[in-house]
Amino acid sequence: MGIIITKQELVIIGCGAGGGTAAQFARKTNRQASITIYEKGSYPQYSKCALPYVISGDIASPDDLIEFSKTWFQKANMDLHLNTIIKDIDVKKKVITGEYSDGSVFEKSYTDLIIATGSVPSIPPIKNIMDKKTLKKQIFNIRTLDDATAILHEIKHVKHATVVGAGLIGMEMADCLVEHKIQVAVVEALDQICPMLDADIVSLLASSIKDYITIFTNHFATEAVFTNDTLKSLIIEQRETKKQQHIPTDLLIIATGTTPETTIAQKAGCKIGKTGGICVNESSLTSQPHIYAVGDCTEYVDFVTQKPVQVGLGSIAVRQGIAAGVNAAGGTYTLPKGFLQTFTSTFFNQEIAAVGPAFSTLKSSEMVNGKYQGSSLPEYFPGGKPILMKIAVALESGSILSAQAIGANAAQRINTYATAMLADMRIDQLKKLETAYAPPIAPTLDTVTLVADIADMKRQRKKK
Amino acid sequence: MGIIITKQELVIIGCGAGGGTAAQFARKTNRQASITIYEKGSYPQYSKCALPYVISGDIASPDDLIEFSKTWFQKANMDLHLNTIIKDIDVKKKVITGEYSDGSVFEKSYTDLIIATGSVPSIPPIKNIMDKKTLKKQIFNIRTLDDATAILHEIKHVKHATVVGAGLIGMEMADCLVEHKIQVAVVEALDQICPMLDADIVSLLASSIKDYITIFTNHFATEAVFTNDTLKSLIIEQRETKKQQHIPTDLLIIATGTTPETTIAQKAGCKIGKTGGICVNESSLTSQPHIYAVGDCTEYVDFVTQKPVQVGLGSIAVRQGIAAGVNAAGGTYTLPKGFLQTFTSTFFNQEIAAVGPAFSTLKSSEMVNGKYQGSSLPEYFPGGKPILMKIAVALESGSILSAQAIGANAAQRINTYATAMLADMRIDQLKKLETAYAPPIAPTLDTVTLVADIADMKRQRKKK
Repeated sequence: MGIIITKQELVIIGCGAGGGTAAQFARKTNRQASITIYEKGSYPQYSKCALPYVISGDIASPDDLIEFSKTWFQKANMDLHLNTIIKDIDVKKKVITGEYSDGSVFEKSYTDLIIATGSVPSIPPIKNIMDKKTLKKQIFNIRTLDDATAILHEIKHVKHATVVGAGLIGMEMADCLVEHKIQVAVVEALDQICPMLDADIVSLLASSIKDYITIFTNHFATEAVFTNDTLKSLIIEQRETKKQQHIPTDLLIIATGTTPETTIAQKAGCKIGKTGGICVNESSLTSQPHIYAVGDCTEYVDFVTQKPVQVGLGSIAVRQGIAAGVNAAGGTYTLPKGFLQTFTSTFFNQEIAAVGPAFSTLKSSEMVNGKYQGSSLPEYFPGGKPILMKIAVALESGSILSAQAIGANAAQRINTYATAMLADMRIDQLKKLETAYAPPIAPTLDTVTLVADIADMKRQRKKK
Repeated sequence: MGIIITKQELVIIGCGAGGGTAAQFARKTNRQASITIYEKGSYPQYSKCALPYVISGDIASPDDLIEFSKTWFQKANMDLHLNTIIKDIDVKKKVITGEYSDGSVFEKSYTDLIIATGSVPSIPPIKNIMDKKTLKKQIFNIRTLDDATAILHEIKHVKHATVVGAGLIGMEMADCLVEHKIQVAVVEALDQICPMLDADIVSLLASSIKDYITIFTNHFATEAVFTNDTLKSLIIEQRETKKQQHIPTDLLIIATGTTPETTIAQKAGCKIGKTGGICVNESSLTSQPHIYAVGDCTEYVDFVTQKPVQVGLGSIAVRQGIAAGVNAAGGTYTLPKGFLQTFTSTFFNQEIAAVGPAFSTLKSSEMVNGKYQGSSLPEYFPGGKPILMKIAVALESGSILSAQAIGANAAQRINTYATAMLADMRIDQLKKLETAYAPPIAPTLDTVTLVADIADMKRQRKKK
């Protein structure tokens, strides 16, 4: 990296995890560069992933989520403009046009631009939830600090909440709502919760959740029902039978994913990929020279399949932010050849984690699975917690393609697999890993190696 | 591995973790082989590492530690002889001579032999602790089930216990004794507790321990003092000043390491290495054909330095047991090119873990250190626990040489480093690892990558 002293005018559009991190690393790389950040919202960099925990009360106040204050940006000699919208861009002149909150229009020239415009919630076609372009009252996304504040404001009056979408955010929100003794239902169009997880993992997960909430898989949400302007219920419809039912609902959370926000990138002529994200390379550079893009607005390739993916993970936004910030400021930072897509989450006392593409996207003729249910501790030591791991391995090469875990320290155990995948390690190497052993901490042979052993045995057999 | 059906006569000397595991994997590999195991003690395979937790009461009874019962061995069609001593070996005839507990002598032929004789406690030259070849009453090792049972029998009368040796077992025992509201002192000849750990890690460890026990580093234990056959105190002497003091002691634990038990291996003509262990290769074969050795009685090489090491870790005994069992039974199993020496322990509410040779054994001109104190959770999320990691990286290649950690999930975090080391990953790759992130579980950038980043930066600077 090193410190570079050249005059650069760096402009960053968006001050979320990606944009904020880019600013921080640009400054670390280049003390003299002018760094200007425009953010359409009212807050500097905060953790979107933690919004559910403001609802649960784990985090005392929405303001606590702000990771870098306005003062921080000031002290780092960066020019941060909140409530400011970027409207246009002239790539030839290297000038953007924007509008401040008071309606005044400005122009700003740049030598290097970082687009960190994030994504916007996808709104499913449910009747009666929108008023013009805004969700009606009692109906929310969980995407911004203002969403969290608004939900918190409502929450004491809520008896029945319904979450549409059983992805990670939907499930995290369901758990956080249960903390308030609210009756929670989750509606999911697909046939399982957490569609990115393998069915074996999900079946364990679902069985531990069913006592807390009601889950409707294979159901579409079709209509919100109001009486005198008050939300009373949600109509849902079974996908095959088309049977409808009303679920009592006085708080409706829409958590059906997001769509990359690429308006300004398109105006700049940046290539948009198949997934709808801005195409970036291992430097986080777009198809346009001197224009970088980071975070939820981008697409890059999956590490294993090398196919384009659009991944809305804060951890990836931060890593792209490092790359774009360093590179745009005159340094050099190259990301690995694709995203591992490592992720974790916890709800209803279960920890899940995964790395690599979903098993369902892999060609079953070219791989084998290994599955093992172990314990966090040796059998003889009281208090061991179950850990189920499932992995996919390439039949020919023995490369590790994907791994998922539920249970004790799932996240840290998946990090071991992420490391092995990043290193292009083969499964017959990993199965011999000397893991750390002590009776109160982990067994002599940890689940991370036992599941590798099983996958390798199946591979040897299938190859014959 | 596969199943092999040839007639083999496998003899295993010793039924600890290494011998027991070898038996188990030999049977998995070869259903027809005759497998005979001779164990000098009274119990089949049990966890020696868990003995302190019988003392603490975490494990209800010494018997709970038995991992495979006599019945288990019977059902697996193995011939297990307890209380049986192997006295001699004729390598040419492939016959061993032994003595059963009733004094009767027998001969047994073998096609393949596995030596798993373990190690015996090293007794330091403390006056007045031995009666002939046995420790006097109130004085114990913590090495066998019978040791644990005997200590448990004494423990209600104990007010002051002293542990000689501040290695892992010594510290674990100290913690377990404190559980009984006993006043505990630990005496260590070297200048720090846990000599295998780096001073930075130890200083954090020591500061969290000092409220629980009294530690005398730089002190030799010199003499046990009895009044009317009752142990009253231990005399210790400061190494430099030679100043002596009496520590009140009515229970004395000797935890000053062990020495490989190689008597029978030497009679067999197996090469003994510099460290005093039986030399074995990556198949766990000794210098003698058809004679394998596993566990604490062996020496192999360190993965990083390729220098011989004798490592008394249960995890390594098990892995060698797998290799020897499979190979002796006619299969093929090759261990990695050396021991990573991954280990972990927990005492006084601190979890420590490490992988690779001790920093002090590495050439400082050829490496850089990285140190980082992070948190298990993002800053804004309450309840984060500190985690300090320190790593050593080769200056030229960027290879990871060693890593140590203290704090939250130290063991699992060290497993990530163990994986990277086994894969010969470079530090500039590992620093870009996508670790699993979720606010209640781990920060966007985990300490495992942040410490890598610091080490890599120092490396770039030092190389210039």
